[in-house]
Amino acid sequence: MSTKAQIGVTGLAVMGRNLARNFARNGYTVALHNRTASRTHQLVEEFGEEGIFVPAGTAEEFVAALERPRRLVIMVKAGEATDAVIQEFAPLLESGDMIIDGGNAHFADTRRREKELREKGIHFVGTGISGGEEGALHGPSIMPGGSVESYASLGPMLEKISAKAKDGAPCVTHVGPDGAGHFVKMVHNGIEYADMQLIGEAYQLLRDVAGYSPARIADIFRSWNEGRLDSYLIEITAEVLSHVDAATGEPFVDIVQDQAEQKGTGRWTVQIALDLGVPVSGIAEAVFARSLSGHADLRAASRHLAGPSALALPESEAAAFADRVEQALYASKIVSYTQGFHEIAAGSETYDWDIDSGAVARIWRGGCIIRAAFLDRITAAYEAEPGLVSLLSDKEFADEIAAAQDDWRAVLVAATIQGVPTPGFAAALAYYDALRAERLPAALTQGQRDFFGAHTYRRTDREGSFHTLWGGDRSEVEA
Amino acid sequence: MSTKAQIGVTGLAVMGRNLARNFARNGYTVALHNRTASRTHQLVEEFGEEGIFVPAGTAEEFVAALERPRRLVIMVKAGEATDAVIQEFAPLLESGDMIIDGGNAHFADTRRREKELREKGIHFVGTGISGGEEGALHGPSIMPGGSVESYASLGPMLEKISAKAKDGAPCVTHVGPDGAGHFVKMVHNGIEYADMQLIGEAYQLLRDVAGYSPARIADIFRSWNEGRLDSYLIEITAEVLSHVDAATGEPFVDIVQDQAEQKGTGRWTVQIALDLGVPVSGIAEAVFARSLSGHADLRAASRHLAGPSALALPESEAAAFADRVEQALYASKIVSYTQGFHEIAAGSETYDWDIDSGAVARIWRGGCIIRAAFLDRITAAYEAEPGLVSLLSDKEFADEIAAAQDDWRAVLVAATIQGVPTPGFAAALAYYDALRAERLPAALTQGQRDFFGAHTYRRTDREGSFHTLWGGDRSEVEA
Repeated sequence: MSTKAQIGVTGLAVMGRNLARNFARNGYTVALHNRTASRTHQLVEEFGEEGIFVPAGTAEEFVAALERPRRLVIMVKAGEATDAVIQEFAPLLESGDMIIDGGNAHFADTRRREKELREKGIHFVGTGISGGEEGALHGPSIMPGGSVESYASLGPMLEKISAKAKDGAPCVTHVGPDGAGHFVKMVHNGIEYADMQLIGEAYQLLRDVAGYSPARIADIFRSWNEGRLDSYLIEITAEVLSHVDAATGEPFVDIVQDQAEQKGTGRWTVQIALDLGVPVSGIAEAVFARSLSGHADLRAASRHLAGPSALALPESEAAAFADRVEQALYASKIVSYTQGFHEIAAGSETYDWDIDSGAVARIWRGGCIIRAAFLDRITAAYEAEPGLVSLLSDKEFADEIAAAQDDWRAVLVAATIQGVPTPGFAAALAYYDALRAERLPAALTQGQRDFFGAHTYRRTDREGSFHTLWGGDRSEVEA
Repeated sequence: MSTKAQIGVTGLAVMGRNLARNFARNGYTVALHNRTASRTHQLVEEFGEEGIFVPAGTAEEFVAALERPRRLVIMVKAGEATDAVIQEFAPLLESGDMIIDGGNAHFADTRRREKELREKGIHFVGTGISGGEEGALHGPSIMPGGSVESYASLGPMLEKISAKAKDGAPCVTHVGPDGAGHFVKMVHNGIEYADMQLIGEAYQLLRDVAGYSPARIADIFRSWNEGRLDSYLIEITAEVLSHVDAATGEPFVDIVQDQAEQKGTGRWTVQIALDLGVPVSGIAEAVFARSLSGHADLRAASRHLAGPSALALPESEAAAFADRVEQALYASKIVSYTQGFHEIAAGSETYDWDIDSGAVARIWRGGCIIRAAFLDRITAAYEAEPGLVSLLSDKEFADEIAAAQDDWRAVLVAATIQGVPTPGFAAALAYYDALRAERLPAALTQGQRDFFGAHTYRRTDREGSFHTLWGGDRSEVEA
């Protein structure tokens, strides 16, 4: 009998295959399994020299190939396929074994599965993995949930295969119990949507108001990438914008159909935030902007609507405007992350996960799509004050926004007057101004609700719930 | 044996009680049932002279009191209580009988219940009822779903007890099969949230930028109520704003705590819109504004943040600004309704409901919270063009927005510069400008997605899906 495998991967489509290779390349013996065996053989044939693989033809052979406690990674489509694979393997496992789900599961499914398997003594480790195919192979950002015990066994392996931040720290941490890992991965994706939307708005402003060509805008993004906006998404934006379509000689961005698609995690982020009562307007506008772009019929029917066309600024003023856009983008980005981290804190509290927000920012510094220098700052903010109510309360972020806000407002004024849609920038500023407002019109809302539905209100000057007899003499009664 | 009742109501809390009285006052014999019998007796004692009531002590007596086919209205808390009551009564009913659920059920629950009961030959009529306690008694707006057959039997009775629009038309129609009625009620509530938020923003601008007192703003709302904004919500806003708190002598709106509450249908409207891929940014901002207002800790931690304070305009300019706010409010309101009706159309298509949007606007003209002159205009728009893609495509609305938009933009510029949060106005304008945009940055989004995840893109100049080999020689391949 050969050496037992330390880890096994079932589901060898591109993500599973690359993750298996990553384990093998890091010195682990990896058992392999796939519903159609040809994929297993193909992996061994093509990449067998990268490490030690133990191909298994059946579920039984696969499980038998793993050392105890078993570590079994499933990399299949989120949803019913995941349940089917769990049902296939769980009966073959023993107490203390671990099932690691590396798909994009909804955290509520992960909570259900974890509970069911816990009753059988099996650890279920719902794990967010970000970084796409390349990340899976060369080092992703890994967000495992599940028990402390399972992390003690799995953690060192995950740390080895994960991305490393610039300071060498592995981009993985034990996020928290049951669904915590998939929850944090979901919010990661929501923030990614917001980042991309804000970049899109900045691009449109530079194009229409500054009057710059895509190539020139690419240079601006490249220069921004040298500063505080240094990030993977800014970097690839420059790459996309500088690319020229070979077939037409036109800027690539001009030949791509402007209808954005989405897969669902951004939508989930907003839906769950609504359940948790967390305002994530920046993420919501990003999701809506994608769906709006895809309604070709609506857009076709609306092109005739009245409104200004942007007039490009004279060259002498364009550069100063571009600097203002950088300020607006940065300030709006701080707001997006504030909203995302608020959602993580609310989820953590609701589900008793005890998530370390600073650690979350730390493991997003490498491997994942939103990796950015900026995340060091967030980690530092939470390290300076672990109970930070909001990123905006951090002195450094507050100071930066204070410095940025005149430009932020000026950019929005230009967009408003010139008719350039900036839902993300606008939602971020409205959130900022609402949070700092001494009084909000919510008092009027409460008055209206009491008027039409006797929903009662609270007073500023004493405790209790009150109702005004609107249909009567308008005296106030305690409810 | 006495005459049989034409309709029965079980669940005699305030909504059920008032609905039962409404039926009785309109000449129907009404069977009554409640889990605790004292409530039944109390109703008969207090209001017995209003009509003919048949109190029933047990479920069996209640069912026996109803003429065939039976019409049984359940008015209990949405959720598990509804299922419990259905389980109690369904076994006592016969084929062709009807259960009418008048609670605020989620339309997905209504679809499930309708299907289960249909298999037993029972019609389940999920029915939205809007207008609160007063509406239930004097005439609500009624939105029944369910089978055509059930509406043939119920419709005339519902028409009799419903609100009547100014032209005398009853505010009820057969909305569509299964969950259609509760779906439309949900969107009604979402639009109500948006209306209230926009009114709140208008108020804040009149207070902070125009520098008006609540009493003076009440007068402005009263004058607006004479024009195209004529509506119940504008009317009661004036009432709330002119009310003076007896205890302090202060304007009532200033002594109400500015933390808005919510019950869930606004949130559902946004969550379902996300599932349907419909941008409802105005409704979402309204829901977020309520939850933001309630985060006292976050607001307390943010009051120190840098930003301008509004400087009231000189009196000579204030009136002109107030007129501009009316334009901004009206334009933003058109956008909210555009988004809400888009959601109804999308729901109708997804669930095969064949909802008549013009009829929906028609039955909202009386009885419900969002009743308004404006809804006549929406009905007219759909009557003029039943396949209208978007309310914004209606020539009259488009013309009005064209006329309003300079002021709309000017108001947003003032709010942006002066730091008054206007998330609703801003989201509405961004939606408008995005819809009419020739090109959106969604093209860049697709380029980024193809870069980091090989998600492919479409081209503007030919069919197919494409991928650029970003990590290679950057040539394009057909996907």
